[in-house]
Amino acid sequence: MIAYDTDNIFAKILRGEIPATRVYEDDETLAFMDIMPRADGHLLVIPKTPCRNVLDATPEQLSAVMKTVQKMGNAVMAAFAADGVTIQQFNEAAGGQEVFHLHFHVLPRHEGVKMRAPGTMGDFDLIARQAEKVRSAL
Amino acid sequence: MIAYDTDNIFAKILRGEIPATRVYEDDETLAFMDIMPRADGHLLVIPKTPCRNVLDATPEQLSAVMKTVQKMGNAVMAAFAADGVTIQQFNEAAGGQEVFHLHFHVLPRHEGVKMRAPGTMGDFDLIARQAEKVRSAL
Repeated sequence: MIAYDTDNIFAKILRGEIPATRVYEDDETLAFMDIMPRADGHLLVIPKTPCRNVLDATPEQLSAVMKTVQKMGNAVMAAFAADGVTIQQFNEAAGGQEVFHLHFHVLPRHEGVKMRAPGTMGDFDLIARQAEKVRSAL
Repeated sequence: MIAYDTDNIFAKILRGEIPATRVYEDDETLAFMDIMPRADGHLLVIPKTPCRNVLDATPEQLSAVMKTVQKMGNAVMAAFAADGVTIQQFNEAAGGQEVFHLHFHVLPRHEGVKMRAPGTMGDFDLIARQAEKVRSAL
């Protein structure tokens, strides 16, 4: 197992060293907006404690994160009148992982609307308004 | 929330009414091979108790399923000398869900190998050999 890198950007977000548009947190987890949204309202859920991905997470980290994934899934369904939710979670680069702190993607989905291709920076004003909708739905 | 349909195919697999290539089970969860594999070794993890998807699962179902997802993720890494694992979980038709019993997709990944398009039936002999590799890695 590869060691956890404490300089990954989600660790920096957790330490408050770089900003994020936070929508929810509890003692164990944090949810914030993805800055390259593949769907309107695309957000991420992470544990506050270090682990690289699902392969090295503790049962406690997995349980806490999934509880928040569920909470955020139901929140985005309400916030965006979504028809469904796609959850993605990537492990190691070959698995699609780019930031090496465990995270789950929560993507609100609407009938007939495809996910956008990855890698395009979102509009920050729009993301801020979407974040407010998620917070209001919690 | 839409009611759970007891006639979905995973409920039938759990009742033994239709076959599946099982690779692991415990009191709370079952893992079996996907018959339309998008990567070699693609498998599914489900709870043994009914719920439609992440949106209506209990904390206990989510915890148990994630524990098995982790176990299977590490097993496929070893079984197929994989470089990573992609996890997908779909909620409602718009979210990508086709069978309405909670399930997580666990896809072993290799550098430079893309996932195949969904919807193509796999080779059953090959799937059986891959299942044996997964069982051996547990």
